[in-house]
Amino acid sequence: MLKITKPTLLVDESIAKTNIQAMAKKAVESGVEFRPHFKTHFSHEIGDWYRAAGVDKITVSSIDMAFYFAKNGWRDITIAFPCNILEIDALNTLAKNIQLNLVVESPESARYLSQHLSHPAAVFIKIDTGYGRAGVRWDSTSQIHSIIEEVKQKTYFKGLLTHFGHTYKEHNEETIRQIHQSEVQRINETKESLDLAEVEISIGDTPSCSVVQKFDKVHEIRPGNFIFYDLMQYKIGSCAWNQIAVCMVCPVVAIHQGKNEIVIHGGAVHFSKDHLLDKHANPYYGQVVELKETTHWGDAVEGAFLKSVSQEHGVLSYPTHLIEQLAVGDLVGIIPVHSCLTANLMKDYLTVSGRKITTMNSVPERSLH
Amino acid sequence: MLKITKPTLLVDESIAKTNIQAMAKKAVESGVEFRPHFKTHFSHEIGDWYRAAGVDKITVSSIDMAFYFAKNGWRDITIAFPCNILEIDALNTLAKNIQLNLVVESPESARYLSQHLSHPAAVFIKIDTGYGRAGVRWDSTSQIHSIIEEVKQKTYFKGLLTHFGHTYKEHNEETIRQIHQSEVQRINETKESLDLAEVEISIGDTPSCSVVQKFDKVHEIRPGNFIFYDLMQYKIGSCAWNQIAVCMVCPVVAIHQGKNEIVIHGGAVHFSKDHLLDKHANPYYGQVVELKETTHWGDAVEGAFLKSVSQEHGVLSYPTHLIEQLAVGDLVGIIPVHSCLTANLMKDYLTVSGRKITTMNSVPERSLH
Repeated sequence: MLKITKPTLLVDESIAKTNIQAMAKKAVESGVEFRPHFKTHFSHEIGDWYRAAGVDKITVSSIDMAFYFAKNGWRDITIAFPCNILEIDALNTLAKNIQLNLVVESPESARYLSQHLSHPAAVFIKIDTGYGRAGVRWDSTSQIHSIIEEVKQKTYFKGLLTHFGHTYKEHNEETIRQIHQSEVQRINETKESLDLAEVEISIGDTPSCSVVQKFDKVHEIRPGNFIFYDLMQYKIGSCAWNQIAVCMVCPVVAIHQGKNEIVIHGGAVHFSKDHLLDKHANPYYGQVVELKETTHWGDAVEGAFLKSVSQEHGVLSYPTHLIEQLAVGDLVGIIPVHSCLTANLMKDYLTVSGRKITTMNSVPERSLH
Repeated sequence: MLKITKPTLLVDESIAKTNIQAMAKKAVESGVEFRPHFKTHFSHEIGDWYRAAGVDKITVSSIDMAFYFAKNGWRDITIAFPCNILEIDALNTLAKNIQLNLVVESPESARYLSQHLSHPAAVFIKIDTGYGRAGVRWDSTSQIHSIIEEVKQKTYFKGLLTHFGHTYKEHNEETIRQIHQSEVQRINETKESLDLAEVEISIGDTPSCSVVQKFDKVHEIRPGNFIFYDLMQYKIGSCAWNQIAVCMVCPVVAIHQGKNEIVIHGGAVHFSKDHLLDKHANPYYGQVVELKETTHWGDAVEGAFLKSVSQEHGVLSYPTHLIEQLAVGDLVGIIPVHSCLTANLMKDYLTVSGRKITTMNSVPERSLH
């Protein structure tokens, strides 16, 4: 049996691959391109699982991540973040080596890229179809035209890119479908207003890509989180319990029976401080699950959850009848609230068969020499 | 002038060194040992700043951090976290090479260490003097005796260790002093009840170590955050504005004048999701400051703050009359809410004179080859 001795992010390879294949299949059946977002796992080995499912175009959230995956052989990368023009040298290095797709949302950025890119790159305009975080409003036609006018020289206009980020606040499949439908409608109105021959539409949130069965009137989908899912996605309704592919395993370091609390090694530097609210509006940071043979997790343990995190400490609330069965040195399994942030902090993963998976954040092993 | 092109954690070396010297001086004047917590910076170079101030004993929050600093020549390290007995092999490696001080809070852990440590290590008992997160209650004398009975063979009893964590919830110097005083009183009652010749008392929160001028009835102090301080510590009253030694610098990637919002590259993977609440109980994640010549920051910019963070995006709320002066490609300075978590995520720092400082989280530079 595998020996886990410290906070560890387990990845069930089989579930993750099934999640990839299901999304890839849905894209094929809808006749849309599948350009998965790699910001959830940022691991070249996990990238290979996508290659095996036929993926050859990816999305990343930062220039650092673009470098990491370009180095690992990916040749068509979209950086789905409003372009940071201060990084023009790095963008030129990427544009020289790969098919680079950038996102802009102002004429100033588009002009800067046109004037300073020395190698060709495609440009998407970021459209805000309702989420309100970033992008040009879908109905700001004149602003969109002003941007397109600046896309010249080494840059060329590729299409419109949006993110339905407000689906993450929903808990109802039907509402998520409605958001998806109305925002696809909006971005298609934008497209029609441009009166151009070829305008690709790129969309991308995990909730709507998970619950919608057939994608219509879009060119490509960019979901990311769906490979692992997490407690938040389960609560939203994006996935079934058995589609969650990651679980934290943490050592029990203290048991406070009188308070129904367990102290674990597993805090904000492992889980992040992302949280959900319980029915009394109290935050919680993870759900305890049954753990079998160290690496296999099962159902949620009712009433057992991660109630607080500080830097390295986590405190679990634990039911009386179960706390008696635990001892210091035991391991507990916890489904994290937000797998992207947890994965970013954990840096390495362990498959349920006991293989270590490294990421762009990996650091050398412990050593005294 | 220094060129910053991506989210960067600036460290003002001069302020940080002054913070170190001030705390070291206060410890000397109080006749207590200074064993600073290195969980805030976890950088061997910054460790050297402490060495220059006469420090030769340190505190860390994890076994990984103990290895990192032991490798960098630190020979007396306390791991101030309830001992994770699953890591016995790593603890033995450390105990063989350095003066290792461990923390236990149950007879089970103490017994396990006594039976399995092959090299000598000191044991502190973690005492809960009122915070309520971890430790044995200060008045649970029989439990403390049960632990001491198990400390034998290669382990030896060194003293009582506590953390006044509830000072972080206060905003008033006098209240913080009162907490400090009453908890020092409590742990001294515990000490007296033991009737042993030598019992060291180790305390350690940044708020009370900052506001108390003279330490009395304790053997050592273990503050950590004080080297950098941050927005939270400023709000608590632990520091003056000009004692804050770190500032995030982030590129502006979009300006939404109509909404009084600015999108920056700088999100949850840079700042963490730790937040404060404004007077309307809305969360915020950082305070915008004046930025001069890229690397020098000044006063807070009133009404400009980090209102939301997602994975890579940050959204600043920005006053109308100031937003007009900003352009895409500008840099903004932001004091983070919690410097420990921000530093953990940023991995490297930049001094205001332009030198890179690496940490135990550092990863290789961008490269395509």
